[in-house]
Amino acid sequence: MSMTPIPKGFRFSALASGIKKSGKLDLALIVSDVPAACAGVFTQNRVVAAPVVISRKNIADLTCQAILINSGNANACTGPEGYKIAERTLNLAADALKLESNAVAIASTGVIGAQLPLTPFESGIPELVSGLKSDRADDVAEAIRTTDAFVKISAIAPTDEHDYTLLGLAKGAGMIHPNMATMLGFVMTDARVEPNFLNRALKDAVQKSFNSITVDRDTSTNDTVLLLANGCAETALIEEGTKEADAFCRHLHKVLLDLAKMIVRDGEGATKLVQIKVTGAVDEQDARTAACSVATSSLVKTAFFGEDANWGRIIAAVGYSGIDVDPDRIDINFGDVAVTRNGVTTGPEKEAEATAVLKLDEFVVTIDLNQGEAESSYYTSDLGYEYVKINADYRT
Amino acid sequence: MSMTPIPKGFRFSALASGIKKSGKLDLALIVSDVPAACAGVFTQNRVVAAPVVISRKNIADLTCQAILINSGNANACTGPEGYKIAERTLNLAADALKLESNAVAIASTGVIGAQLPLTPFESGIPELVSGLKSDRADDVAEAIRTTDAFVKISAIAPTDEHDYTLLGLAKGAGMIHPNMATMLGFVMTDARVEPNFLNRALKDAVQKSFNSITVDRDTSTNDTVLLLANGCAETALIEEGTKEADAFCRHLHKVLLDLAKMIVRDGEGATKLVQIKVTGAVDEQDARTAACSVATSSLVKTAFFGEDANWGRIIAAVGYSGIDVDPDRIDINFGDVAVTRNGVTTGPEKEAEATAVLKLDEFVVTIDLNQGEAESSYYTSDLGYEYVKINADYRT
Repeated sequence: MSMTPIPKGFRFSALASGIKKSGKLDLALIVSDVPAACAGVFTQNRVVAAPVVISRKNIADLTCQAILINSGNANACTGPEGYKIAERTLNLAADALKLESNAVAIASTGVIGAQLPLTPFESGIPELVSGLKSDRADDVAEAIRTTDAFVKISAIAPTDEHDYTLLGLAKGAGMIHPNMATMLGFVMTDARVEPNFLNRALKDAVQKSFNSITVDRDTSTNDTVLLLANGCAETALIEEGTKEADAFCRHLHKVLLDLAKMIVRDGEGATKLVQIKVTGAVDEQDARTAACSVATSSLVKTAFFGEDANWGRIIAAVGYSGIDVDPDRIDINFGDVAVTRNGVTTGPEKEAEATAVLKLDEFVVTIDLNQGEAESSYYTSDLGYEYVKINADYRT
Repeated sequence: MSMTPIPKGFRFSALASGIKKSGKLDLALIVSDVPAACAGVFTQNRVVAAPVVISRKNIADLTCQAILINSGNANACTGPEGYKIAERTLNLAADALKLESNAVAIASTGVIGAQLPLTPFESGIPELVSGLKSDRADDVAEAIRTTDAFVKISAIAPTDEHDYTLLGLAKGAGMIHPNMATMLGFVMTDARVEPNFLNRALKDAVQKSFNSITVDRDTSTNDTVLLLANGCAETALIEEGTKEADAFCRHLHKVLLDLAKMIVRDGEGATKLVQIKVTGAVDEQDARTAACSVATSSLVKTAFFGEDANWGRIIAAVGYSGIDVDPDRIDINFGDVAVTRNGVTTGPEKEAEATAVLKLDEFVVTIDLNQGEAESSYYTSDLGYEYVKINADYRT
C-alpha cells in the first residue's frame, strides 16, 4: 500500500512487458478520469525521438488524459518505421482506454537506434489498462527507470493553505556532461488550473530545476516533462497573477527541484550532490553561464570525487565560460570555508578545512564574482569510476 | 646522444631545480644563437597565468631569442605576487644570457593556485645556462612534462626540396573535456622566414592541429605555442604567396598535427586515438562544430572505451551540437564499416563488424551529413577508469 499522496482522479498501472530483457517493469500508464489541462517541455535536440514528435503534437491543444511510457528502448534514431511503431502504440492505448488518440501522450527511454518491438505493447496494454489503480504511482516510478539506482517521487499533500495535491515522478541519471541520459518527468495535480498559466508555470519551474542540472544544447533525444492538472480536487480555478498562482508556482518548483536533485544524486556513479552557486554577477544569465561551466567541468568533478579542494580548476572553468570576469576579484567558499579571496588562496589551513567539507555527501560551492547583485545555481555530482563503468557497459 | 634532427643555431638545457617534489627535470631553456623571428598562440581563457601575460607582451615585436620553461607549478591564479615572481624569473634568465628581458619568453605548467618558489630559479638558472647544448632538445621535452606519459617530439629534417630543419616539442594530456590540462608547444626552425607570414602560418597550423583537439573556450590558463625561426640554415627568405611558403606551411602543419595526435593518445588514461571526421557539411564551421560535439561527448568516449559501436550517442551529439542537421540523412562509418545509413542502423552484422574496428587502438569515425561538400576533423580519445584516477588524485 503506497503512502504517496495521490491527486484525486488519477490512476496508475505498470507491468513487465518484455522490452527489458531483465524482466523488470518496463511499461507504464497514467490516466486521468477526466480530460486534464496539460503543459509539456521537450528536448531541444535537433535529433528528436518519435514519441517526442507525437506527444508535442498531441498536447498542442493544452489538454491530455493519459500517458503511455516505456523504458528499455528510446525509439530514437529509428526512422519512419520507428515513427509508425510509436503511432501504433499510441493507438493501442487510446483504443483500450476508449479515448481519442490525441488525448494520449507517449514517452520512451532506453537504448537509442534499435527498433521498438510492438508485441510487448499488443500483449501488455489490455492488462495495463485493467490494472489501473489510484495507489500504483510507485509502480510507474519503478517502471520508467533505466540506469536509475532508485525511484524518484516527490509530492505535496493538501494543507490548510491549499486543497490540492501535486505528485511528481521522474527518471534520469548520468549527469556528467553535455550529454545526459534521457530525463522524463511527469507531474499530476488535481488542482484546477488555467491552461496558459499552467504552461508558463511549468516552463519557469523547469528552467530553475531540470534545466539547472543540464543545458539546452545538451538534452537527449527523448527528454520530456509533462504536467497534467485535472481539477478533480474541485478547487477554484487558479489563474495568472493571483496569490494562489504564486503559491502553485512555489509548490511546483519545489516538486521539480526535489526530483532534479534526486537525478543529480543518482548521477551515474555519483557519490556527492554539489550546488554550484555563483553570486555577485552582473546579471542572472552570466551567473548561470559561469555556474554551468563549473558544474560540467570534468576536472572539477573528478576533484570532488578525489575530495580535493582544487579551487584553481574552478577559477579556470569560470575563466573559459565566456562571461566577462575579473579573476582578481573572485572569492570562493567551500561550504562556509573561504578558500579563495581576490583570486588567490587563503592558505593551507583553509584548504585543509575545505577538504573536510568535501568529505560530506552534500555541500555548496559559492563563487562570488564581486561584479553585481545577480546569482544562479547549478547542481552537479562528482565524477568517479562508476560513471565510466556504467557508460562503457550500458548496452552489453 | 640524441638522434632528433636539430635546427642550426639552437641550444637546449634542462635540470631538476626542485619545483617538482619528485626530483624530476622541471626547468628548461631554449636559446637561439641569434635573434629569431617569433610567432605565438596563447590561451583564450579570461583567466590567464602570469607567464602568458608576459610572453604575449615580449613577443609582440615578432622577435624572441630564448624561452624559459618550468613544470610543476603553473603560476596561475597567483595574483600580483605571482606576476612579480614571473618577471623575476624572466630577468634572471635574461641576465644570465646577457639578453634584453623582452628577448625572452616564459611558460609555466603544473598546479594552479600555488605561488611559484623563486629559489629553484635563483640556484638553477646559472647551471641551466652553462648546460646549453645543441643535442639536448630531448631533455627539454622531458622537463616540460606534467601528467604526460611520454615525451612528445616531432621533427622534419632537410631534404632535396628544402634545406631547413623543423623541430617541435610539446606537453599535454587530459583530453576528456572542455577543460584540458595545459598544452605547451615549442617549434624551432633554422629557416629564414618573414615574420608576418610566420605569424599567419602558425595560426593556421594551430587551428588544424592543437585547436582540433580542444576548443577555444576550453583552453587552460597557461596554453602557449611559440614558433622561433632564426634563419641559421641561411635559406632564402620565405615569404607569403610563394611555393616555398606553401611547403613551409605543410611541414609546420605536419609537425604540429603529429604533436597534437601524441597529446590525444596521451589523453589521461586514454587507450585509443579516434579521428572524428565530419563530411558532407554545408560549410567547414558546421563540420567543425559537429565533430567537436561528438569528440567531447563523455557518453561517446566511454562507449569507445567499452568498445561499443554506439552510433546512437554519436547522432545525439550531432543533434545537440547546434548546427542545422537532418538526422534522417546521416551516414556513419566506423573505419570502413557502414553502421548507419539515413539515420538508422544497417543491422546487427554490421555492428558486430564495427565492434572489431573499435578494438583497434587507432581508427576513424566518419559522419556524413549529406548536406554539402565541407569537412573537418577532431581527434579524441576514449574515456576510461584511468582518467578518473589521474584527475582525482592529481594534487595529492
